[in-house]
Amino acid sequence: MKIGGKHYQSIWIDETDNSIIRVIDQEKLPFEFEIKELRSVEDVYSSIKDMTVRGAPLIGVAGAFGMYLATLEITAYTNISDHLNNAARYLISSRPTAVNLSWAVNNVLGKLIAITSPEDLSPVALSAASEICNGEIDNCREIGRHGLKIIEEISKKKKGERVNILTHCNAGWLACVDYGTATASIYFAHEKGIPLHVWVDETRPKNQGAKLTTYELGNEGVPYTLITDNTGGHLMQHGLVDIVFSGSDRTTRNGDVANKIGTYLKALAARDNDIPFYVTLPSSSIDFSISDGLNEIVIEERDPCEVTDVSGYGDGKIRSVRICPENTKAVNYGFDITPAHLITALVTEKGICKATEKDIKKMFSDKFN
Amino acid sequence: MKIGGKHYQSIWIDETDNSIIRVIDQEKLPFEFEIKELRSVEDVYSSIKDMTVRGAPLIGVAGAFGMYLATLEITAYTNISDHLNNAARYLISSRPTAVNLSWAVNNVLGKLIAITSPEDLSPVALSAASEICNGEIDNCREIGRHGLKIIEEISKKKKGERVNILTHCNAGWLACVDYGTATASIYFAHEKGIPLHVWVDETRPKNQGAKLTTYELGNEGVPYTLITDNTGGHLMQHGLVDIVFSGSDRTTRNGDVANKIGTYLKALAARDNDIPFYVTLPSSSIDFSISDGLNEIVIEERDPCEVTDVSGYGDGKIRSVRICPENTKAVNYGFDITPAHLITALVTEKGICKATEKDIKKMFSDKFN
Repeated sequence: MKIGGKHYQSIWIDETDNSIIRVIDQEKLPFEFEIKELRSVEDVYSSIKDMTVRGAPLIGVAGAFGMYLATLEITAYTNISDHLNNAARYLISSRPTAVNLSWAVNNVLGKLIAITSPEDLSPVALSAASEICNGEIDNCREIGRHGLKIIEEISKKKKGERVNILTHCNAGWLACVDYGTATASIYFAHEKGIPLHVWVDETRPKNQGAKLTTYELGNEGVPYTLITDNTGGHLMQHGLVDIVFSGSDRTTRNGDVANKIGTYLKALAARDNDIPFYVTLPSSSIDFSISDGLNEIVIEERDPCEVTDVSGYGDGKIRSVRICPENTKAVNYGFDITPAHLITALVTEKGICKATEKDIKKMFSDKFN
Repeated sequence: MKIGGKHYQSIWIDETDNSIIRVIDQEKLPFEFEIKELRSVEDVYSSIKDMTVRGAPLIGVAGAFGMYLATLEITAYTNISDHLNNAARYLISSRPTAVNLSWAVNNVLGKLIAITSPEDLSPVALSAASEICNGEIDNCREIGRHGLKIIEEISKKKKGERVNILTHCNAGWLACVDYGTATASIYFAHEKGIPLHVWVDETRPKNQGAKLTTYELGNEGVPYTLITDNTGGHLMQHGLVDIVFSGSDRTTRNGDVANKIGTYLKALAARDNDIPFYVTLPSSSIDFSISDGLNEIVIEERDPCEVTDVSGYGDGKIRSVRICPENTKAVNYGFDITPAHLITALVTEKGICKATEKDIKKMFSDKFN
């Protein structure tokens, strides 16, 4: 999608030197636009951990490119199998909740393990990572195509009156590689001239809604309004939300959804007000091995300073302010679980399906064991 | 309650000059402790509007003292009735949602209207306002006494394991005059040695939880943890919350509760996880004239800059940072409605009653018409 009218992806291979992966530094948006180089496994690990790159699909792709960079670190003295396994384990440890990361890293690792000639490692890794990267673009495009039908239907019902969509956090193109999951259908609907408007949850603690979703939507000319995370319920009670589009960091085989903390509260409010609540996700975000979101998904606990301090732009620079007394104790859970029964349906690259094991299995029978 | 070990109220009459009302500047807490003087109707109006004083019971009391200050503005040329009525209307217009403000202002006005000798106006107004002020202290003490029983019961059930209480915004002594509504029973239980811990919602946009509730609890030595507004649902899903105590800015005769935006989402999560959700309030917060919270209570819309910018402490001073792109459109609804059916019970100065017209009527029969 576009920044200042120019097309970008959130991650790409440098045009002239394919040993460099480039990403947009999402810690600095929307205040500063900066492109960062990733040249090593360590670079990828840190960029995921410090959230220079974030969003389940994107950290999967970054992890895949990390495995490619791992192959470039091999010398004549490297125990290749150890090195690759260690790199994979290390990359996966950078963030625990999104399943895309382990899925993508293990996907590349699996292809590398089978290789007998060391000189084939890098080309195979690059091709595998690029395939995952392009696959996620395709996934988002397809998710958008399917989600578009939902928006079109609501627009028809409302006789062309603007469709109000609420979204939490950033499940946009910045979280993916292009298009986004929750945003793809919004961009497609906007492009088709369907009148719509997006309520953007600021999404504390890191405010990815306020910082990134607003930035994306603004750059594409989509009308939006920023709200605090507390506001969605009130809007729903007053008929001001037609539909909720959420992303997902990990979804179980029976449709429980781990997503940014606070998603569950919006799902409850949507249910209480009979508003459809859709989760948009590529199948790379589905963990087909588990079926109990509340008990089986590890919820990342991040630094409490993200709660006690808020970063933004003031007096000419990016800075943080503390919003509580000194030495306040805080906790910072990154995600919560929205139980399947609160979800109207999942919008995947293969189509729309109910958040039930039966329907997920029907759509992804090859992934079930 | 205490600040730095010294007892304070949130509002009081100056000890040596009873034409001055003193308040703690709540816009500067917890970063700076400053006492402000209110010497005129205009001072009171601005201090309510800019939230130097805030919290439903406190703005009621401030409004009452505002009427007293109005009597001090009377000269030989004043049309007394016009002057007092205008002052009342002006004070009430400073914030629309909390019913305490109009209740308290009209209470004092009613007493003044009956007076025939102008020299009696100020003494009567001072006495009426003081009565309301002391009444709110008594109310909170009683609310605390009744709420304490609820905490004691949970503590017994948990066999002395710590009781985890979640609270939204600041329904503490700073929002009242002393003790608080939601916090009164917490302070009493803590004083009695009942092990407890408070989850404090930061409460965007103005973060009264992060700024004021933490400050209060810290000054009283009550253990607490600050969380984002998104976190409560996750905690409830994992058995980490035993009870929710909320305040109220206006409650209808049948128990619908207007309170700080986001309260409704916590009530939904409490219901979904079978956690008791209590609303603590003095009867001055009950609007006995209305019975449909969603359609009859005016929800204040405040300046969007409270959403786009976050104030806190950084580099040695109180400052704001912008958390979104420049010129981001935002809306800022101050309150939402928690429907009566989501509320376990109301804790009032007269006791605990169900959030139903029948039970509220039983407890406050004199207020019903």
